[in-house]
Formats: sequence, structure tokens, C-alpha cells
Amino acid sequence: MGRWEPDARGRMMRAAIELFTERGYEQTTAGDIAGAAGVTERTFFRHFRDKREILFDSSDTMGRNACEAILAAPDDLAPLDTALAGMVAGGALLTGRRDYSRQRAEIIAANPALRERELLKLARLTEGVAEALRARGVPEPTASLAAHTAVSVFHVAFGRWVGDADAPDDLADCIAEAAAVLRALT
Amino acid sequence: MGRWEPDARGRMMRAAIELFTERGYEQTTAGDIAGAAGVTERTFFRHFRDKREILFDSSDTMGRNACEAILAAPDDLAPLDTALAGMVAGGALLTGRRDYSRQRAEIIAANPALRERELLKLARLTEGVAEALRARGVPEPTASLAAHTAVSVFHVAFGRWVGDADAPDDLADCIAEAAAVLRALT
Repeated sequence: MGRWEPDARGRMMRAAIELFTERGYEQTTAGDIAGAAGVTERTFFRHFRDKREILFDSSDTMGRNACEAILAAPDDLAPLDTALAGMVAGGALLTGRRDYSRQRAEIIAANPALRERELLKLARLTEGVAEALRARGVPEPTASLAAHTAVSVFHVAFGRWVGDADAPDDLADCIAEAAAVLRALT
Repeated sequence: MGRWEPDARGRMMRAAIELFTERGYEQTTAGDIAGAAGVTERTFFRHFRDKREILFDSSDTMGRNACEAILAAPDDLAPLDTALAGMVAGGALLTGRRDYSRQRAEIIAANPALRERELLKLARLTEGVAEALRARGVPEPTASLAAHTAVSVFHVAFGRWVGDADAPDDLADCIAEAAAVLRALT
């Protein structure tokens, strides 16, 4: 990116959330988002494949961060704790972005196609976590179950973080609380 | 349904799986399926909205059966055990249909749009299970976590049932094995 576009990506992401919230997702074009962020439409498409992708950009980064943390975890950490450490590391990307995350969640909840996309991203995250666990020597079906369980804990914790004003302000604390409830369940 | 169409629904479901496997999902039309099952296209559309729905017909029935079993479970059954009993009750629909289920799983795995649909059905199942648990008085986030966990156990058990020839022939046994692995994890 050129130096005349400081944080163009972040500006486009924030502009997209504002426009999707104000006008509706369907009624907003990539050109509208570029205009609101003060960049050209060409710059928009250099960063994002389409207007849908601008909402899911963080998902891929989150998955990568989660898997890196899993691969780097201490050898003797138990599979579920390892997967949960991955969730905390992935979720760290959202630190300070609770309002953004809440607005994004509301946009997605209101649009079935976006909901399907979100589910697909969560399924890919689950597969990535299971693969990272297998790379550490965790056998099946333990790896898949730990991955599903950790992603479920993340999903429930994230839902509380964006949907419940009384939830802890730190997503990692919400994850820890949900993990404790899970352990009490089994 | 008229008495001149004994098991037309089942015949169409089996014909669809055969044709999707032989020719590919994209290359098969609703008319092809109706023809192979010996019914008219009109009969096809009386039973299924489109050729995609023929693959997911069981999902809704499974969800209904799971939720009914959850609502009917003994009052003192713990939330996760209740949700797992729902999975076993829902999975009972597939008794004797392991080959059908395996072929269906292969068709879905090969087609991204069908995979998204499957994920959406699993998400709806999770929501239905959580709702049934809340109706029994299970509070949040316990209800959601138990629902996610039980559906994850089902998902992993089902994957083993259709993908691993060494897995038990009874899906309920696969669910019990996966649940035991889950409990060892936490």
C-alpha cells in the first residue's frame, strides 16, 4: 500500500459497518464504502474481493493467529486447554473493538447469506484448530472434539461479549467463563 | 399422498442419491429424479421444494425428534446428558441407512453450496436443542454450551460412522464413544 493511504483498510472496514448499519447491507455498494472512506473503488477491490468479504476479513486473521498459538503452545498442555489458548489468542485481535464487533454481529444476524458465511468461517476455524492439534500429535477423534468444543466455547463467549452489556469487557474473560461452564457440564 | 404412490418419497430420496453419485449433483435435475423413481415431476415438487431439499429432508425430522426427546427426558437428567439423549433420538432416524448416509455425506462434501446448507442445518439443530433445554429451565450460557457440545459430539460421531468402516454399526454407539472422549477432554 502507498503511504498516501494510511490505514485505508481500517477506514474502509469502519465505513462499511457504519453504512451497513445505517442503510442496510443490501443497499450499500462497494463504491459507497470506498467513497465514505475517502479511497477509490479500485483501492477497495485491491483490499477486498467484494463487500461481503470486508465483514469477514478478521475471521481469516483470527484463524491464523489461533493456529499459530496452538502450534506454539507448551508440549504438555492438554488438548482442550491448547485449543482454548488458540481461541484466546485469536480473539485478542478484537481487543478494543467491542462496539465494532457488536455492530458487525447485528448486520450478520439480519442477513441469512451473511449468517451462512459466518457459519462456514466457524467451520473452517474448527477444521484449522483440529489440524493444528493433529500436527501436535493429538489423535482423532480427540483433536476434532477439542476443536469443536473450543470453537463452541468461543462462539458462546463471543455472543455474550457482543450481546450482553453485563459481560466482562475483555473477551478472554468471557472465554474463561464459558470454558468454566463447559467443564461444569461434563 | 394417494395410495398409488407407496413410499414415493423414499423412492425419490434413494433415486436422488444414486443419480447425484453417478452423474454429479449439478448434472441431475428434479425431472431426472422423478423419472428414476417412477413418479411425475409434479409429485417431486409436492414433496420437495427443490433438488437440494431432497438431501436435507431428514435434517428437519431429526431436529424435531431430538427436541421432542429433550422435552420428554426425566426432569433430573443433567443438561448435557439430556442434549445427548436428544442426539441419540434424532440419530435413530438413520438406523439401517448407513450406506445411504455415507453416499449423502460424500455428495455434500463435494459441493460447497451443499456444505454451507449442511452447516446451516447443524446451526439450526443447535439452536433448537438450546431452546428445548431452556424450556426445561436450563439457564444460559449452560443451555447453549450443552447444545453446541452435544451437536459437536453428534457431528464427530456421524463423521466417524459414515467415514470409518471400523466404527460401530450403530450410530448411538458412535455417539456414546465420542461423548466419552469429550468427557475425558474436560
